Amino acid sequence: MTQTPDAIAILGGTGDQGLGLALRFARAGRPVRIGSRKRTRAEQAAHDVLAKLPDADVVGLENPEAARRAPIVILSVPFEHTAATVKSLKQVLEPEQIVVSMAVPLATAVGDGALRTVGVWQGSAAELVAGLVPDGVRVVSAFQNVAAHRLMDLDHPVDCDVLVSGRPTDRAPVMALCELVPGLRAINGGPLGNARIVEQITALMIGLNARYDVPEGCGVRFTGLPER
Amino acid sequence: MTQTPDAIAILGGTGDQGLGLALRFARAGRPVRIGSRKRTRAEQAAHDVLAKLPDADVVGLENPEAARRAPIVILSVPFEHTAATVKSLKQVLEPEQIVVSMAVPLATAVGDGALRTVGVWQGSAAELVAGLVPDGVRVVSAFQNVAAHRLMDLDHPVDCDVLVSGRPTDRAPVMALCELVPGLRAINGGPLGNARIVEQITALMIGLNARYDVPEGCGVRFTGLPER
Repeated sequence: MTQTPDAIAILGGTGDQGLGLALRFARAGRPVRIGSRKRTRAEQAAHDVLAKLPDADVVGLENPEAARRAPIVILSVPFEHTAATVKSLKQVLEPEQIVVSMAVPLATAVGDGALRTVGVWQGSAAELVAGLVPDGVRVVSAFQNVAAHRLMDLDHPVDCDVLVSGRPTDRAPVMALCELVPGLRAINGGPLGNARIVEQITALMIGLNARYDVPEGCGVRFTGLPER
Repeated sequence: MTQTPDAIAILGGTGDQGLGLALRFARAGRPVRIGSRKRTRAEQAAHDVLAKLPDADVVGLENPEAARRAPIVILSVPFEHTAATVKSLKQVLEPEQIVVSMAVPLATAVGDGALRTVGVWQGSAAELVAGLVPDGVRVVSAFQNVAAHRLMDLDHPVDCDVLVSGRPTDRAPVMALCELVPGLRAINGGPLGNARIVEQITALMIGLNARYDVPEGCGVRFTGLPER
């Protein structure tokens, strides 16, 4: 066991959305382990976080090494790399670890556009991940609809709901993560299969960003839910 | 041509959501033609509208007769009756009429639950409708995510965005309809194929209503879009 309690591993943390989450969690005081296929790229991303947040506890590692260091492992790699990344973690992931899928099966994975999606045999990217992790590893779906640029902009709240789907005991720690980020609200997204819908919403939002010329990205909110 | 300019036909207008739209449009001063498979039920629904809004221009008719009377025809029938209803209008619909699909392929159509959907060969209920209407009839997708109880409650704004999908010139009149209802905001939902996503969101919202105990129904808003 080399996990740091409270640490959050972000695989593919060199991409915009992963780096944005790294910044937000680091600012909330949580240890962050950024993973990438290449250690030098992960180290550069950690360097970028430290440039903005000099007191952050953040390091860059190869993906499997990052996954080994944290009880919660967020998968922030493009959909076309999701399966390969999870397979590369088989010797590393331990029972009770939580893997968070934020992948969206955008049609860019097959050379088409980001306004459309491809079908996933398992139903969703999150369910694909659930079929690949070792026994006892808990898979939760979250963060798909959160715009990278809004995460990166530390001076403003994000203004977006996060639908968190999975088994109830698995959802709770991920819902707690959302609360670390100003302007994010965790919503109980029900069972993991609901990722089929949540992932699709991202493609719709990418279209809204294009049609309404919102380079920083729109968010989604559900109205009429009771206050916590 | 027996269409009343500015009239709105609502087929299946005896159901909660259709009746809610009828109330809102009637209150905005628009002529409303409520359709049902049985004329007596449509007449009862019109009677219910008049009980709340004595000055309303509202009548109840059989579905095809209602569809004949208005330039915009809203399909508010359950998914399992959508295809049959559209087929029953083949002799009635005229080029340039707009048919609005608000159907959601909930799994209740095949005896399963409302938290899940069934696949539609054409991609969405709206695209199914588009494949059945006579040439020149314009199909638009809208209103799927608007809660019936919020529509019915005339004392409060609805607090929900409406994603309107279809060809640009077809979307515009339907987006204008949304603006008649306090608290509804029309969003450019892009091409009709996006109904594949919008329809799914309703199943997700039905789940939210159950998990958060919101009998009046939640709404959805997209944040960060420019003000009109």
